[in-house]
Amino acid sequence: MKRNAILLIVVFLALLGCKYESQVSHMIKTEAPPRPEGQTDVLALRCDPISTVRVGFIGLGMRGKGAVERFMALEGVEITALCDLESYNIEKVQISIAEQNRPKPKIYEGENGWKVLCEQEDIDLVYICTDWLTHTPMAVYAMEHGKHAAVEVPAATTIDECWQLVNTAEKTRRHCMMLENCCYDKFELATLNMAQQGVLGEIVHVEGAYIHDLRELNFNPRLSKTGAYTPEIENNVENLPGLIGYWNYWRKSYNIDHTGNPYPTHGLGPVCQILNIHRGDKMNYLVSVSSNQFGMAEYAENRFGKESPEAKQSYKLGDMNTTIIKTEKGKTIMIQHDVTSPRPYSRIHMVSGTKGFAQKWPRTHIALEPNAHSALSAEQMDSILTLYEHPFYKKAGEQARKLGAIAHGGMDFIMDYRLVYCLRNGLPLDQDVYDAAEWSCIVELSEKSVLNNGMPIEIPDFTRGAWNKLQRLKFVE
Amino acid sequence: MKRNAILLIVVFLALLGCKYESQVSHMIKTEAPPRPEGQTDVLALRCDPISTVRVGFIGLGMRGKGAVERFMALEGVEITALCDLESYNIEKVQISIAEQNRPKPKIYEGENGWKVLCEQEDIDLVYICTDWLTHTPMAVYAMEHGKHAAVEVPAATTIDECWQLVNTAEKTRRHCMMLENCCYDKFELATLNMAQQGVLGEIVHVEGAYIHDLRELNFNPRLSKTGAYTPEIENNVENLPGLIGYWNYWRKSYNIDHTGNPYPTHGLGPVCQILNIHRGDKMNYLVSVSSNQFGMAEYAENRFGKESPEAKQSYKLGDMNTTIIKTEKGKTIMIQHDVTSPRPYSRIHMVSGTKGFAQKWPRTHIALEPNAHSALSAEQMDSILTLYEHPFYKKAGEQARKLGAIAHGGMDFIMDYRLVYCLRNGLPLDQDVYDAAEWSCIVELSEKSVLNNGMPIEIPDFTRGAWNKLQRLKFVE
Repeated sequence: MKRNAILLIVVFLALLGCKYESQVSHMIKTEAPPRPEGQTDVLALRCDPISTVRVGFIGLGMRGKGAVERFMALEGVEITALCDLESYNIEKVQISIAEQNRPKPKIYEGENGWKVLCEQEDIDLVYICTDWLTHTPMAVYAMEHGKHAAVEVPAATTIDECWQLVNTAEKTRRHCMMLENCCYDKFELATLNMAQQGVLGEIVHVEGAYIHDLRELNFNPRLSKTGAYTPEIENNVENLPGLIGYWNYWRKSYNIDHTGNPYPTHGLGPVCQILNIHRGDKMNYLVSVSSNQFGMAEYAENRFGKESPEAKQSYKLGDMNTTIIKTEKGKTIMIQHDVTSPRPYSRIHMVSGTKGFAQKWPRTHIALEPNAHSALSAEQMDSILTLYEHPFYKKAGEQARKLGAIAHGGMDFIMDYRLVYCLRNGLPLDQDVYDAAEWSCIVELSEKSVLNNGMPIEIPDFTRGAWNKLQRLKFVE
Repeated sequence: MKRNAILLIVVFLALLGCKYESQVSHMIKTEAPPRPEGQTDVLALRCDPISTVRVGFIGLGMRGKGAVERFMALEGVEITALCDLESYNIEKVQISIAEQNRPKPKIYEGENGWKVLCEQEDIDLVYICTDWLTHTPMAVYAMEHGKHAAVEVPAATTIDECWQLVNTAEKTRRHCMMLENCCYDKFELATLNMAQQGVLGEIVHVEGAYIHDLRELNFNPRLSKTGAYTPEIENNVENLPGLIGYWNYWRKSYNIDHTGNPYPTHGLGPVCQILNIHRGDKMNYLVSVSSNQFGMAEYAENRFGKESPEAKQSYKLGDMNTTIIKTEKGKTIMIQHDVTSPRPYSRIHMVSGTKGFAQKWPRTHIALEPNAHSALSAEQMDSILTLYEHPFYKKAGEQARKLGAIAHGGMDFIMDYRLVYCLRNGLPLDQDVYDAAEWSCIVELSEKSVLNNGMPIEIPDFTRGAWNKLQRLKFVE
């Protein structure tokens, strides 16, 4: 009887514990690995100044070619290495470099070219513009071989990759900057400046997005010496800079396999900077819901026919994903992703505070107390934007504008300019590895939430407790 | 030993069950009461035609006074009863009625005036424009006394109230229409028309909001013969139509006690109509996250001083609430509520489909395939909006425009015009009791989700299985 009584108590306690867990477990936990022994954080990391930054570029397609051209407009830079899987891309960039009478960079080709590049002695910075899935392996390998890594967005597609980036940066004491160019957009920087100077009061809610109809691009074949392409494409080669689709349809492939928000950082980066994420606040959890997929299938059917493999393919990516993030300080972030709906481009970029409001898309407008019921007139807004123009634009804005399209209206150039400036002066970079991890971790976490009917998911603190060590975002000069 | 073995198996199964539950219970269930025996649904309910609709108005403040004036512009209407707690409000309306040489309505005053009004024989329709918490009790009481009920938004503030409305309408076979005026806005109706005619393709994602800085109004005292008011208010009486704050600060009180989205229907109604909710699709679940409260406290401190009771008060309502709803057919709805941030008014009203896109705030723009990357020019948009102008505006638009402010630019008049038209002709109303319940249930469900870190919450099917019986929204002529 005694044993039975004990067993009954065990049953009771087990059920009670279970019940308790089901009542409080209102969130899917995200495991955070302990920091490897001997490692410390890399917040505000300073490395030895590099008088001439020797750069190796991996990936010379859509983003890489423009990056090389921007780097040729910067002081104190040497382009020492180029790497791509397609000789066509390499040749285009070589021509461009030759036209500027620059020294010929070394060329790395083939499956393992990027590894060989990372292993070279004559490189300080590896600049990675490849497909999403190769970002983390390349950045990690670069850091492990003593290089700083600059990597296109998103820097990682899984939580595990996020931790790889953080752990490798902490272990090697190398910079790992995700190339979130939208943080350097003129309007985004002006609103950051306004927020930091208190013009908008306490910031309460922010929004960002990547809304960009990429259906055509996702289904386009790639134009290369070996790739298949249609006569219309061939006849239009002059207007197509080397390629028109993604290499090996990598982006479409990702849409086939994943849902959630696979590309959150353009909208998220600028608003996280405004909220001082891991510099006094941190993201605690998210909920994420996607519509079903309608757009890809309908587009494929219209373009390739009902019986085509493209139309018969199933695509996991819901057309519209909406994610809401709650921070430790009680702020909210709303982030959207839609690359399959016919609608105008938008990153939203909305900032709402207790004294004012600013938004870029679909209408650029600002409203300030005490008359915030109405937006400022165009003239008033222009004068506010001039007043709060970010110092980066005062310094490098003219050169940025001259570069035009290859700098996305300036922001890409300001980004590279800052990266090189900080490396040359031994300063902490504007965006650190924790930014890269925080902004990228939404890829996996939003998908997980979507697959669980929008369940709240814990967002890891990649600083492992140091999110309040820095008091606010500071671009070091 | 045998008993112990059985007990061990029990422990094991209990734990397994528990574990299983915690893995699949990815949603907070919402209990739906079974339909009372003998009741059937009231979908497409037709009642006997009423040649002259005799109306009794309860609540003659902010919304009620304008309603009476609009009804005086309608054919086939008799205003037989008025009810308010404040004689000031009644007098104002009486003057207005006398000016039009209309018969004097009966007056019902005092705590129970509304009940006595509902009990009268000379009333067909009870039109309720009171504070939120009295909507359901009044509508239920009206129906129980054989009247049709028209009730301001939200019709209910709890799930229990939603079921009360549904059950009472089903039992009494009376109409219960929530007065969601935004469903009759010109742009909203044009987009509904476009959606129904396939111009936007398959509708995938929609957005709505109530973003309206009400801080001043929420804290304003009420001007009445007995109420406290400041000299500035007194000197400005001419510009203040009878009152400037909410009766007994009822809206501020609600902000003190509740979070979530207490006022979802202006944004939700029009987009639910476009998605044919309970007419071929249904809302399955929502997730909802609010920012903390910042705006009310800061405003109160600035206006009344740090030591004032207003500043010391705690307010539960988060400044910005964002809610995402997923439907059975895989569509998503994003709804926001913010009445405490300094920013321009917005209901968003965005509709995104596989062939086109339309949005009203903050920029009115439409984009259509094959050139949806860019919004239509103002001229093109105007011609589309003229082409798809809703028949209601063709019929009653001119009269609506004449009424101006009291019709919110027309929509309030079109709403009343349709309500009376359908009652006089014995037709189903445009908005039924299930709409009222579905759109209002977000009040409680969003709060519950917010209080549980954004947990997904099941949205009840108020038709109890008949959501697919009607094939799409139809305004019966």
